Amino acid sequence: MTDIPTNHPRYHSLMIRERIVQGMRDGIVAEAGLIAHGRGEALDYLMGEETLPEARIAEKIAALKLRDGSNSVISVNGNTAVLAPDEIVELAELSGSKIEVNLFHRTEDRISKITELLLDAGVKEVLGGKPDAWIPGLDSERGKCCAEGIGSADVILVPLEDGDRAQALKDMGKTVICIDLNPLSRTSNTSDISIADEVVRALRNMIEFLKDNPGKNVFFIKDESGKVHSLHGFDNQKNLEAIIHRIAKRLTDLQS
Amino acid sequence: MTDIPTNHPRYHSLMIRERIVQGMRDGIVAEAGLIAHGRGEALDYLMGEETLPEARIAEKIAALKLRDGSNSVISVNGNTAVLAPDEIVELAELSGSKIEVNLFHRTEDRISKITELLLDAGVKEVLGGKPDAWIPGLDSERGKCCAEGIGSADVILVPLEDGDRAQALKDMGKTVICIDLNPLSRTSNTSDISIADEVVRALRNMIEFLKDNPGKNVFFIKDESGKVHSLHGFDNQKNLEAIIHRIAKRLTDLQS
Repeated sequence: MTDIPTNHPRYHSLMIRERIVQGMRDGIVAEAGLIAHGRGEALDYLMGEETLPEARIAEKIAALKLRDGSNSVISVNGNTAVLAPDEIVELAELSGSKIEVNLFHRTEDRISKITELLLDAGVKEVLGGKPDAWIPGLDSERGKCCAEGIGSADVILVPLEDGDRAQALKDMGKTVICIDLNPLSRTSNTSDISIADEVVRALRNMIEFLKDNPGKNVFFIKDESGKVHSLHGFDNQKNLEAIIHRIAKRLTDLQS
Repeated sequence: MTDIPTNHPRYHSLMIRERIVQGMRDGIVAEAGLIAHGRGEALDYLMGEETLPEARIAEKIAALKLRDGSNSVISVNGNTAVLAPDEIVELAELSGSKIEVNLFHRTEDRISKITELLLDAGVKEVLGGKPDAWIPGLDSERGKCCAEGIGSADVILVPLEDGDRAQALKDMGKTVICIDLNPLSRTSNTSDISIADEVVRALRNMIEFLKDNPGKNVFFIKDESGKVHSLHGFDNQKNLEAIIHRIAKRLTDLQS
């Protein structure tokens, strides 16, 4: 691993990159996961590598939805597992969610390595190793899931998910929350709540918000300007459009 | 390898991705190269996965500069080698350039694999295997080069180069031409001519232009609207700004 000075302006991004590379060497991250990470890096770079105000609103609403779910599940893949095992476990605990490993490039070896990583991070149970249900509309390998987890979930958080799966989960009638740095992606445009932010930052922000709001009945949140947003009146498409506008404006401003 | 139907709207991008993954399995592409490829994918996606008019102008001017150089060199790394071995060899031939393998993550094994790949593509000589010079300002491993090639080049094409190296080559007084999908990158902003286009498309466009203009003395080129551009009056910064504006506009248009 390269030594990166902690005061480097891009320290977080470079550390995250190191973890992804190490994750691939360890057999947890797939090759396609490395390329997907690069795509995220480029979009994060265009956003200035910080949480945008619109993403922060989505994070707060997503955290509440996850906690309000009667059977909420966090779906974990290789990239998420190596980048944020502690955050996944903490968010699951705070929101009362189950954790299920669910892979695009499913191999038993990767499933068990990711499960172990999450158990090491302190969670008692990790679903996904013994699938007994499937997600309709996906082919057999990719659709495998657990009846107790994703199969019966009412609210599901899918960090770093592909568009086909997001759509299939939506078609099952679930409330789908994604974390995806591309506000134009099919995943972002299919989900009920789309968080366009880097996954570690996003999860930490959700954790922080739930810690600050331990009560069950939160129906309104405030954004940075003090404006109040209703949990039920959240317009995901409008929020994504605002993010795209912000990136476009940032691009134009950067060069002038 | 996945079978991708040739009529898939993103066929080119997906095929290219497959080649990069295979390149890593073959020990030619570094892990960091996979992530860098992902960054490029995201930017190419924002550009609509086609050559923008400004990139096409840069490609034409770059092709002429390369051909006009008295000792022009094409620097090749792992990503470029697996994506475009035939294009590199054809462009070198048409422009009278030498080819030198020059790696960020230099290992003798990767150097020899890349050299072999290029020799298989039909070129007689590939420099880089026996470095006897260095690029001032870079550390010893990264600065290694050949006196006959990069060391004495007046014009150098660096597809997919990092900012440090682009700057170091510029400091040596060379005319630097880069291919970099990020118009905001340090490489793009350091080079004399920056081609913000996908590397395979960029090289093919350069080849096509030289085939269409076999004479030595070309001083003007026409863009798609018929406007004439002087080879010597090319303003790289202005061209990059136009590309950034185009991406920002495209982002805003996409959602409306």
